[in-house]
Amino acid sequence: MDYLHDGHLSLIREAQKDAEIIVVSIYDNPAQFSPSEDLSTYPSDLDRDLKKLSDIGVDAVFHPLDLYDYGGSGETKSESVDNMEFTEEGEGNAVSCIGDKGEGRLGHETWIRVERLTKRLCGKSRPVFFKGVATVVAKLFNIVEPDIAIFGKKDYQQWRIICRMVRDLDFGIQVIGSDTVREIDGLAMSSRNVHLKPEEREKALSIGQSLLRAKLEALKGQTSCTELRNSVVQAITGSGGRVDYAEIVDQETVVAVEEIKAPVVFCVAAWFGKVRLIDNAEINL
Amino acid sequence: MDYLHDGHLSLIREAQKDAEIIVVSIYDNPAQFSPSEDLSTYPSDLDRDLKKLSDIGVDAVFHPLDLYDYGGSGETKSESVDNMEFTEEGEGNAVSCIGDKGEGRLGHETWIRVERLTKRLCGKSRPVFFKGVATVVAKLFNIVEPDIAIFGKKDYQQWRIICRMVRDLDFGIQVIGSDTVREIDGLAMSSRNVHLKPEEREKALSIGQSLLRAKLEALKGQTSCTELRNSVVQAITGSGGRVDYAEIVDQETVVAVEEIKAPVVFCVAAWFGKVRLIDNAEINL
Repeated sequence: MDYLHDGHLSLIREAQKDAEIIVVSIYDNPAQFSPSEDLSTYPSDLDRDLKKLSDIGVDAVFHPLDLYDYGGSGETKSESVDNMEFTEEGEGNAVSCIGDKGEGRLGHETWIRVERLTKRLCGKSRPVFFKGVATVVAKLFNIVEPDIAIFGKKDYQQWRIICRMVRDLDFGIQVIGSDTVREIDGLAMSSRNVHLKPEEREKALSIGQSLLRAKLEALKGQTSCTELRNSVVQAITGSGGRVDYAEIVDQETVVAVEEIKAPVVFCVAAWFGKVRLIDNAEINL
Repeated sequence: MDYLHDGHLSLIREAQKDAEIIVVSIYDNPAQFSPSEDLSTYPSDLDRDLKKLSDIGVDAVFHPLDLYDYGGSGETKSESVDNMEFTEEGEGNAVSCIGDKGEGRLGHETWIRVERLTKRLCGKSRPVFFKGVATVVAKLFNIVEPDIAIFGKKDYQQWRIICRMVRDLDFGIQVIGSDTVREIDGLAMSSRNVHLKPEEREKALSIGQSLLRAKLEALKGQTSCTELRNSVVQAITGSGGRVDYAEIVDQETVVAVEEIKAPVVFCVAAWFGKVRLIDNAEINL
């Protein structure tokens, strides 16, 4: 995506430790948004992004206009398309923003699904999201052919899905997860933060703060996930947020656990106003 | 797959025209068979295959034991898996032969679907087949990293699906389709032909013969697909075969057409005894 912030720049600093050549991809991927989601309002400012990248120093920026337009689709074939036949029943009306390009007979029709990992956490409320992410990341991998790819662990489930896809499809790529970068007040950096009104932003601090408290409680011996979840849900709800999910899950499978016995990650998604924020805390007992 | 015949060797001869290094993959891919299909009886003889490859001359043979065993799966995680949650509703009970390795929490779970192309023709009677083919071919591509990949056009739909996957996922690979090689009596070469009893084999010639007749009729001006299909179905049924499908389809989308106006391919699948055979004829008016 775009509208780069210090979280993104931290991925580049991570890359600078090892990589001879650093390529940054900037692409507002329509395939990972449903029409009801915020693709059109997702913040964007390419000049600003390029200035940041120029300052930090990267070798190339890959900024394609459209990764799903293969040319000629729909032009020579005018017959109407029986799309309904191909709707995945399990997804209901979950359609992405690819639009007509994806509907035509010669349009994009290949999708990668990491079947179990993508259906939990964010996959429940965003049914097209991870299918679009996995597919576009495979495209980027095949175009850029990196040896190492760096993803932010702020999008924890996404990072795990990419790791699993790379393993399952035998991509010759090392995937590195990079720690979440926070604002000085603790809010996890996100391009969407600019949409928060000042009072919403203040209230949204409850996510990171309650996650940190829960992590400390767990490290002090509280291993009941019900207790830990309750405290986080109460803190967010009490601040006026609407919790989408607050789950303590296995780090590798993102399957919810009832008691912390092995490394877990506490993942939260919550709405403040019209902005959906995610955050997480790894708990390694 | 394995049990190489002259059709496979023709792919290698095609490769020898251009390639500096030729890699042949031999892998009985369980992911493209359902438990009710013939994976266990699929003919196999590695020594025989290696002798043939040594005679014709290739640089490497890639013969993995198991492309879906990532080690450790199911060992550290003993909780039962809620697989039903992840069954694709559109596929009913379509499960492949990957078995327990694929079921475990850390087992293979990434699948590539070429959504429209895979649901027609063979996809209707073999619902797991092309998902397994596309996925294993992506794995092979990522492991072998070829510049050119050669597939037989005898598996016409498979070839088109690979072409579409390569385009949609931006693999940097040129896919070449190589013409079907036939036995001296016209039967399209297939590893499964060894399972035909002598009288079944004689009757199975009706597939290739009726396809050739239909092609000649079309070239002489018969463009009604109903007429052409009827003649092929009658010929095969009259010989004791059971037609799975006989369809005249657009070459690129494999969508059935009613009248031949553009390049098409006449695709047939039919059972003779316990053996399912496929064949096709391109018709370029």
